[in-house]
Amino acid sequence: MTDESRPGVGPVSLATVAAQAGVSIATVSRIVNGETRRASAETVERVRQAIKAVGYHPNQLGRALRNRESRLVAMLAANLDNPVMATIAASTEAALRQAGYVMILCDTHDRPDLQDDYLNAMRSQVVQGYVMVASQPSPGLRDFVERGAPMVFVSRRSPFGECSFVGPDNIAAGSAAADYLLDRSIEEPAVVYPSRESSTTRERVKGFCDRVIARGIPADRIRRADGPGISHLEIGYAAAQHFSAPHAWPRGAMCISDQVAYGVHRLARESGVQIPHDCEIVGIDGSPLNAWLAPWLTSVEIPHPEFGPSIVELLVSLWGGEPPREHLMPHRLAAALER
Amino acid sequence: MTDESRPGVGPVSLATVAAQAGVSIATVSRIVNGETRRASAETVERVRQAIKAVGYHPNQLGRALRNRESRLVAMLAANLDNPVMATIAASTEAALRQAGYVMILCDTHDRPDLQDDYLNAMRSQVVQGYVMVASQPSPGLRDFVERGAPMVFVSRRSPFGECSFVGPDNIAAGSAAADYLLDRSIEEPAVVYPSRESSTTRERVKGFCDRVIARGIPADRIRRADGPGISHLEIGYAAAQHFSAPHAWPRGAMCISDQVAYGVHRLARESGVQIPHDCEIVGIDGSPLNAWLAPWLTSVEIPHPEFGPSIVELLVSLWGGEPPREHLMPHRLAAALER
Repeated sequence: MTDESRPGVGPVSLATVAAQAGVSIATVSRIVNGETRRASAETVERVRQAIKAVGYHPNQLGRALRNRESRLVAMLAANLDNPVMATIAASTEAALRQAGYVMILCDTHDRPDLQDDYLNAMRSQVVQGYVMVASQPSPGLRDFVERGAPMVFVSRRSPFGECSFVGPDNIAAGSAAADYLLDRSIEEPAVVYPSRESSTTRERVKGFCDRVIARGIPADRIRRADGPGISHLEIGYAAAQHFSAPHAWPRGAMCISDQVAYGVHRLARESGVQIPHDCEIVGIDGSPLNAWLAPWLTSVEIPHPEFGPSIVELLVSLWGGEPPREHLMPHRLAAALER
Repeated sequence: MTDESRPGVGPVSLATVAAQAGVSIATVSRIVNGETRRASAETVERVRQAIKAVGYHPNQLGRALRNRESRLVAMLAANLDNPVMATIAASTEAALRQAGYVMILCDTHDRPDLQDDYLNAMRSQVVQGYVMVASQPSPGLRDFVERGAPMVFVSRRSPFGECSFVGPDNIAAGSAAADYLLDRSIEEPAVVYPSRESSTTRERVKGFCDRVIARGIPADRIRRADGPGISHLEIGYAAAQHFSAPHAWPRGAMCISDQVAYGVHRLARESGVQIPHDCEIVGIDGSPLNAWLAPWLTSVEIPHPEFGPSIVELLVSLWGGEPPREHLMPHRLAAALER
């Protein structure tokens, strides 16, 4: 075994295969590329044995550079610690693999500068498409969108004009949460959300408030509670401090994510407020963990495990030269397991 | 803007830059590669302007193929849905980025065949190093290990001889869990684990049982409960069925992961068993979610967010030609927040 055949150090070359088989490099190259007509069956077999013996793998990157084609797709996600993004990443990886692509996953930590660093690194890697999960506006992203890079935005729409999008109908999800609380005769519902604005937050809050008002409750009777930072757990915990004393807690609250709801619940627990008895909480996401650890939580469930196939469908249609499209994923209400 | 400059479709070539600047391709190539002595300051400036105007990015892959060097490191993880692996992935990504590398993340779904598919795909991508999180024995992996590929194993040691490893001291973690239960005078402790064996499971169970026996409790008074499948949540839920009736529940149980503990807790809740009052549960991992959603859980905390820097340190030392080493990460007991 020569040093050259050590994976990760450098690929075994055609020359190694040629030497092993006792044929010319050109012959090996032709056979590797499927042109076997000019070689005898015996030569083809000898080259195949040599390829196996020395551990040769055709270099996809080399081919990618020659053909201006690769099998790489990059996903840039805002925060892999967030289980929702981990679920989207897992489903996209599976759908891409089935379509013959390898997914590169990058964590931008919700930072525009890191997002641009990764976009530039991926462009240098001859990436074939981009999946932007909860992206931030950034100069580099604007540049990619303007150049027409094949991009699918997930969860948050492109901040720069019309692009392909897969995500929940956040307005409808917020409305569904409002209906759930109002149907339980809660007349001063609260809404809990991050201070830092995103399109997801904005739409879910808007869907909620519009529906509450449409059902005859004055806007000023909606209790709004927001919290700083980027961890939704911490945001929920901080925002619920607005409810200050236990008797001042609302009888029901919509949290714009399940993670925000977990944060609200922690403060409730520490304050002796019984959830859902004293305060009915409805989240959005429908995390699979709810059944295990948050049986008190009602949630508007978004089918994140089904995002992957939709994302790949839109990417393939962009590669085929079709215009951007949107897939709004349907939601359903998952009621609390325990009351 | 020409079609060539569209990211994801094909990189802008040196020729485009040369045409824009009105100089030869060779001149552009020299300047891009930092050889500016032979060109006038005015030419260098004109090329820099042209690079900016056409959106040229030096192609790292092209360089990688020429220099037998890339800036890519692949992580193959058994299950990204598992929050422990997501945390390890996030910390490794951050440490690699600081060291100037881009991490490719692949989800093997704990399947040896997918692990081999990804190893071969990554070799074709001229990957510089491999981080194997909870790997499975597979023919391809054996091949990579035997060829001396730069690999760091995480959480589970290499199934094929001595390799670099970052992970907890599972035996010591199991012992710590045993001490916690025995110190609370629990004399017939249970141990809950997956039926499907892995080195992590084996070591944690062994550390637990050896310590219980060493402290004078006969081996046959340890209650063993296992469950099928790969989801630790489901495994815990199924395994706890061995405790059948509420009065037959043990007074204390060690679960080989926090996720197993969540599963046990769900059955306890459904069966009216109060945790920790009726049954003290100690997990291993110390998930950050425990403080939010599982305040009843005591856990032997493994510092997963600190794995990344250790993994990168071992990779760099392998690249430097040093022999494989092991980093055992220290644990600490995180007591239940609520009793």
